Amino acid sequence: MGLVVQKYGGSSVADAEGIKRVAKRIVEAKKNGHQVVVVVSAMGDTTDELIDLAEQVSPIPAGREFDMLLTAGERISMALLAMAIKNLGHEAQSFTGSQAGVITDSVHNKARIIDVTPGRIRTALDEGNIAIVAGFQGVSADSKDITTLGRGGSDTTAVALAAALDAEVCEIYTDVDGVFTADPRVVKKARKIDWISSEDMLELAASGSKVLLHRCVEYARRYNIPIHVRSSFSGLRGTWVSNEKPQGDEQVEHAIISGVAHDVSEAKVTVVGVPDKPGEAAAIFRAIADAEINIDMIVQNVSAASTGLTDISFTLPKTEGAKAIDALEKAKASIGFESLRYDDQIGKISLVGAGMKTNPGVTAAFFQALSDAGVNIELISTSEIRISVVTRQDDVNEAVRAVHTAFGLDSDSDEAVVYGGTGR
Amino acid sequence: MGLVVQKYGGSSVADAEGIKRVAKRIVEAKKNGHQVVVVVSAMGDTTDELIDLAEQVSPIPAGREFDMLLTAGERISMALLAMAIKNLGHEAQSFTGSQAGVITDSVHNKARIIDVTPGRIRTALDEGNIAIVAGFQGVSADSKDITTLGRGGSDTTAVALAAALDAEVCEIYTDVDGVFTADPRVVKKARKIDWISSEDMLELAASGSKVLLHRCVEYARRYNIPIHVRSSFSGLRGTWVSNEKPQGDEQVEHAIISGVAHDVSEAKVTVVGVPDKPGEAAAIFRAIADAEINIDMIVQNVSAASTGLTDISFTLPKTEGAKAIDALEKAKASIGFESLRYDDQIGKISLVGAGMKTNPGVTAAFFQALSDAGVNIELISTSEIRISVVTRQDDVNEAVRAVHTAFGLDSDSDEAVVYGGTGR
Repeated sequence: MGLVVQKYGGSSVADAEGIKRVAKRIVEAKKNGHQVVVVVSAMGDTTDELIDLAEQVSPIPAGREFDMLLTAGERISMALLAMAIKNLGHEAQSFTGSQAGVITDSVHNKARIIDVTPGRIRTALDEGNIAIVAGFQGVSADSKDITTLGRGGSDTTAVALAAALDAEVCEIYTDVDGVFTADPRVVKKARKIDWISSEDMLELAASGSKVLLHRCVEYARRYNIPIHVRSSFSGLRGTWVSNEKPQGDEQVEHAIISGVAHDVSEAKVTVVGVPDKPGEAAAIFRAIADAEINIDMIVQNVSAASTGLTDISFTLPKTEGAKAIDALEKAKASIGFESLRYDDQIGKISLVGAGMKTNPGVTAAFFQALSDAGVNIELISTSEIRISVVTRQDDVNEAVRAVHTAFGLDSDSDEAVVYGGTGR
Repeated sequence: MGLVVQKYGGSSVADAEGIKRVAKRIVEAKKNGHQVVVVVSAMGDTTDELIDLAEQVSPIPAGREFDMLLTAGERISMALLAMAIKNLGHEAQSFTGSQAGVITDSVHNKARIIDVTPGRIRTALDEGNIAIVAGFQGVSADSKDITTLGRGGSDTTAVALAAALDAEVCEIYTDVDGVFTADPRVVKKARKIDWISSEDMLELAASGSKVLLHRCVEYARRYNIPIHVRSSFSGLRGTWVSNEKPQGDEQVEHAIISGVAHDVSEAKVTVVGVPDKPGEAAAIFRAIADAEINIDMIVQNVSAASTGLTDISFTLPKTEGAKAIDALEKAKASIGFESLRYDDQIGKISLVGAGMKTNPGVTAAFFQALSDAGVNIELISTSEIRISVVTRQDDVNEAVRAVHTAFGLDSDSDEAVVYGGTGR
């Protein structure tokens, strides 16, 4: 029996009852002979309440102090969890990110982990303790200031600790049963996935699946740490995410298609009337990059020969929309385009699966399904194991259901889709 | 203009409005040319709410984890205060006890400061920042665990930092105007004291005055740090506490009597029928000391020659009463007393003033005032600059008022007491 890292989110420890329930689950793992390291988020709404307080004293809370404030949240939940475990007769010690050796860069509010030195955790484990670690937080290598890892940071803490401690598995406990073939709120017949490759999970996360964040999966893939996403309420087997298909695991089959993801958090910017000559696209995207905006899909329309002008469209998070428009307007004179169009009524549907590489009919079947559902496609983007399209936002749910059914992912259906002959 | 340390208690930073008000006061000190270090407690009821949560998950919260939990409180208030200051256009950085270099022993929930190494505070000040430090907390030298200093610990943090940073003054902001000649809730005519010697303040604190805690004053006296106790609401001059009378301070006169303190938090234990032979008292108080109970006054009654037995009484905090009875019952056979009496309906009245040393009539006038008020005295204890008596608890308020009036401390009175001729 080896070492397991368990991560519990805010909804699992929302109140004293939740904390006691989680404590029992942790003690169970310990009784089964494991060394147990637990990463915990702030209780329920604590973080939102702290943000609210911050906004009352300062309209634009400062980075360093904002991190100092927010990290109070996990301090509360982790200490309470340690107390609840001790109350069950087991030894537990809680550690802040800094005490656990989570070393980050100095970018407040969204720091990146650059090293993990879990000496104190090792010692605590060797002395028979269950170690409880604050998720989401670290300490900067340069200034020794407290940092936070940004949204979903606790998952990253868990995976990083699992890697540093060479854990058998990193269990991510949440309020759903695992990763599904589509968002169950949209697709009633979505199936829980028993196993998914890290590669496919990365694409799902990048395409709008909310269960695991991209950088957490990336970290796990790099250090070859299996993740087990499961419910803290049911205790059922959830979804395993790993680089290789687990040997001897009967429940696992390597699906051609892993799932359908969708994302309605993006907007589309179209730069109209760009002179069709070398360097124009570069100038546009340099202006965007200088404003530190990450973009997703890019499409350049075919140039109209008569005018020598073309349009360039790209998608980006809605939250970055205003910043992008501002950056482009400022660079308008030097770039020399005609006008800007902004559209936040778009949605993205993505089909993900490593099987695409070797099943040439997937793309055709995907477009056929969308066409049959009467969904118009505005942009297309593909990778080795993913196809994404942009549609009207109103069409997204219908499109996801149509694709999910067409690829035989519905839980009641025994029929698999028959792929056509022409490759994509 | 030198360095000032300001300490704000929980009632001063109870909500966002309070934090913004305090921020303005801090910025004012900075504008006046001072380097400013601020020690802050947890907001209003935060600590009580955290204790309540702890009790919900575990009936007896554990020391280490309890400290981890409680220290979340100052983390919140200090980060918010730093944000509020930055919002006023000044630079501020917050520091945990550990970051501020507050090194303690390892006794959780009531640690003692053993060293202060404020390197990061110095750097922050040199860079033009206002430094905000979490009160009440430190880090243990041995285990590097987070510790708390116990009740009133933030005052001690402030004085300790003032000493380590060689501050001009340690300002303790609170919700009263300063130290009074008696508790104003009991004595309507109590006067605010402009200056009081550290020595007298120590005796007042030991005798039940709640404004400053004993160990905070002791620390200030040892390192010769002047304390200024004042209201965070009025901004008026409060009470200065220092070893020497300030030179050239017109408002200050060295009073014969500093004030009247009272304490109804103690109980009296009487060990009845103790054999009157050498070593008996030692055996009793060794049993008490082994149980780590601090006692206050001790009186041994005159032995009745006929029986060879005597009674020994002592006072101690009511909270320690059960423990003391338990310890004595267990040692009954080896000590050989007859029975125990426990009385928690007592009160203590103390008169404090360095002038007692040279004014021999004080004791007589004190007893006369109590006698005139019809108050019966049960125990007496004296020091160089203090007389204390134990009475029935019901008599305490009346006794305090009578003594306060008799010694000319009432604010409306111009008459000073005339001391009698016989010494005490």
